[in-house]
Amino acid sequence: MEESVLGEYFELLRFASVGADPARLKDSVDCAMWLKKFLCELGFECELSTIDVRDGKAAPPVLFAERKGNEGAPCVLFYGHYDVQPADPESEWKTPPFEPTMIGQRIYCRGAQDDKGQFFAFLCGLRDYLGASKSPLTIKVLLEGQEESGSGALMELAHNMRRRLAADVMLVSDTAAAPGLRPAIVAGLRGVSHFTVRLTGPNRDLHSGEYGGVAPNPAQAIAQLISSLHNPDGSVAVSGFRDGIEPPSESERRAAEASAMSEQDCYNDIGCPSAGGQQGKTIAQRLSFEPTIEVNGIHSGYGGSGSKTVIPAEAIAKISMRLVPGQNVNVVASAVKRHLEDRCPNGVKLSIEDYNPGASGFRLPLSSPIFRLASSVLEEMDSRGPVFRWEGASIPVVSVLREASGAAPLIVGWGQPEDRIHSPNESYGVDQFAKAREWARRILASLEG
Amino acid sequence: MEESVLGEYFELLRFASVGADPARLKDSVDCAMWLKKFLCELGFECELSTIDVRDGKAAPPVLFAERKGNEGAPCVLFYGHYDVQPADPESEWKTPPFEPTMIGQRIYCRGAQDDKGQFFAFLCGLRDYLGASKSPLTIKVLLEGQEESGSGALMELAHNMRRRLAADVMLVSDTAAAPGLRPAIVAGLRGVSHFTVRLTGPNRDLHSGEYGGVAPNPAQAIAQLISSLHNPDGSVAVSGFRDGIEPPSESERRAAEASAMSEQDCYNDIGCPSAGGQQGKTIAQRLSFEPTIEVNGIHSGYGGSGSKTVIPAEAIAKISMRLVPGQNVNVVASAVKRHLEDRCPNGVKLSIEDYNPGASGFRLPLSSPIFRLASSVLEEMDSRGPVFRWEGASIPVVSVLREASGAAPLIVGWGQPEDRIHSPNESYGVDQFAKAREWARRILASLEG
Repeated sequence: MEESVLGEYFELLRFASVGADPARLKDSVDCAMWLKKFLCELGFECELSTIDVRDGKAAPPVLFAERKGNEGAPCVLFYGHYDVQPADPESEWKTPPFEPTMIGQRIYCRGAQDDKGQFFAFLCGLRDYLGASKSPLTIKVLLEGQEESGSGALMELAHNMRRRLAADVMLVSDTAAAPGLRPAIVAGLRGVSHFTVRLTGPNRDLHSGEYGGVAPNPAQAIAQLISSLHNPDGSVAVSGFRDGIEPPSESERRAAEASAMSEQDCYNDIGCPSAGGQQGKTIAQRLSFEPTIEVNGIHSGYGGSGSKTVIPAEAIAKISMRLVPGQNVNVVASAVKRHLEDRCPNGVKLSIEDYNPGASGFRLPLSSPIFRLASSVLEEMDSRGPVFRWEGASIPVVSVLREASGAAPLIVGWGQPEDRIHSPNESYGVDQFAKAREWARRILASLEG
Repeated sequence: MEESVLGEYFELLRFASVGADPARLKDSVDCAMWLKKFLCELGFECELSTIDVRDGKAAPPVLFAERKGNEGAPCVLFYGHYDVQPADPESEWKTPPFEPTMIGQRIYCRGAQDDKGQFFAFLCGLRDYLGASKSPLTIKVLLEGQEESGSGALMELAHNMRRRLAADVMLVSDTAAAPGLRPAIVAGLRGVSHFTVRLTGPNRDLHSGEYGGVAPNPAQAIAQLISSLHNPDGSVAVSGFRDGIEPPSESERRAAEASAMSEQDCYNDIGCPSAGGQQGKTIAQRLSFEPTIEVNGIHSGYGGSGSKTVIPAEAIAKISMRLVPGQNVNVVASAVKRHLEDRCPNGVKLSIEDYNPGASGFRLPLSSPIFRLASSVLEEMDSRGPVFRWEGASIPVVSVLREASGAAPLIVGWGQPEDRIHSPNESYGVDQFAKAREWARRILASLEG
């Protein structure tokens, strides 16, 4: 990577654009301004959404940029997000989370990959492409600052931006390549939906001797509720949860198995057995075609050193669901809510907070023209050719943009498990950045027709 | 209360003597020095234990004070603790937790009741008694600074202090009176034992989309383990847990029922139904004669605002048990440990940390001479006379001191539910302080024989 490009990449990473954190709003705005300048210099007309105020909270701006091409030439929409996950637990970072640090051939920083590294490599490839060709394409770039926390502002804007977003192809670079950096085309994504469960019991933390055996214990109650969500075999125990699921076709299953990580690779990656999900199903099945209910956090009572023998006054659990095609987001959320309410132990009160319906999952037809074009470009880049993947992860906004733009999604990313996105010590490799950049240049050139 | 006594009480409360917190060691030492000075001025010979170093940690000192009486006269040992619970959650305090504040006829401060208020009122009564009589009694005062975190230093010292601790009666003022401040004699205490369970799964917090359905989830695993500890009827589900329990006698049961709080009183106090413990047993049974396993805290993964869709790398639960006579502390702990190990979900590792065996529970014979003497003194103070109580709470060190001193415990305290001990906004009433002081003066006088 040229020094100048590395310098730009580092500038972009230094913005602590944690979209979920209101205290970081200034960082997000600065980051969006920096990106606007970058795209203006490439000849784009750029527009930042006014900072949207929802529920009294200002939101990081959405950047829409457009470079008009020839009448009748194909129109390409590129989507990325400049917000990043929170850095916590900060104590586990070996380098400062918002100071990019190059160690060997990898850059360490929150957002180094997800999604700043991935989309910025694409923008660099776009610059390479524009420098080499008098492009006939109409190119639209949409960058938002809230993907990690639900894409609030963009979700609201998208419906009224249908005309401006209209495109033939929607390119997204926010996913992983296959092992060994073999190219991968995402043929489907799981949806995601999340909420917080709060249980309130006694009016204060109580002495566990004076009240133990008499007062209800919200920490125990939340444990009961959470453990009721799954059967002993790991499958989801919520009645109605699986209603309408569309099973994968035989060719989808074969393709998913062919590109799946092995048990051993998984163990080497996560450091423990792949014992999650339903027993008896393969890793590919569980990750590509099965829904989940996951607990992202539980908190109740004392957690410091030593002991504090209390009965906690309340307990919370953060719960997210990954959804597959055929599952209706709101039907599923109602089923889970009813399940929890029906089982709420005596003496405690349950409330559901911060429900975010997110988006459904989807799968794309393997035989489409855009997939054939992408496959031939990826074969030029790597003789192994692409694998098709059905990602376990979700990009809810892609579902919404797919509908608003009418474009065919082409989701090709260059992540690898060692990037540790969402975890401390996130990083991105120089080789990955180069691939993402080359992909952008080549696919844009081949889309000229 | 005289201004001068209130001033002394406030001085004592201002020491932030949180015995469990190493950062508060200086506060604990200062508090012990202040108490030493107080007792020296009453003619006691005082000795502070050298600050004990256990596991590399310095411990708050133990204060032993003695005032020799006439040869052959009764010997009285008084026990109290000058350490207090941590103040957290500090945001819920309406007044600063370590600045005593008088509102109406109540003093608000951490430790206002437990145990600084209770034992200091007793010491004031002791001073009143000594001022009025040339006492023949030998009086020993033992004040420690780690009761809330296991009485580590004193437990270690007690065995070698048998001769110095030897006494006929051991007075303790660290418990509650009956409703309406009717006097109560504690005829039994539950024991307590506690430990921390830690589950470790993935080597880092994982993205719940990329790994959901594949990686094991420690937050879900801890929920499963915790919910396995109880049966649907609220009884403890651990095999061997109830082995050896000595059921109460009919007179003990009747006395406990007579002094028990009603369902409505309990509701008014804690703000929710008394739905804890085993269904079908009365409040008195559950609190006085039944053991418990309580979760004092669970923590895993994200707990901040918004969402962070991770699979947490680990989870902890803080667990305490209240034990009744006949239960062997170590047998019970082994049974619970085995129960958890046998059920630990695949893919996560379990470890037990910070196990503190604490102490067994005990019950005292209702017809003993010391209970008869105490009853007559309490009838003089309050025509309703005393009730007998079997407290749900524990003072593990009392079990140990009972054995080391050979003394008959006489446990009479003046707490009330509205004191909110262990909770934010702890307080103690002026009327309660006065009763505790009067009790000390009267019982000491009557022990002269």
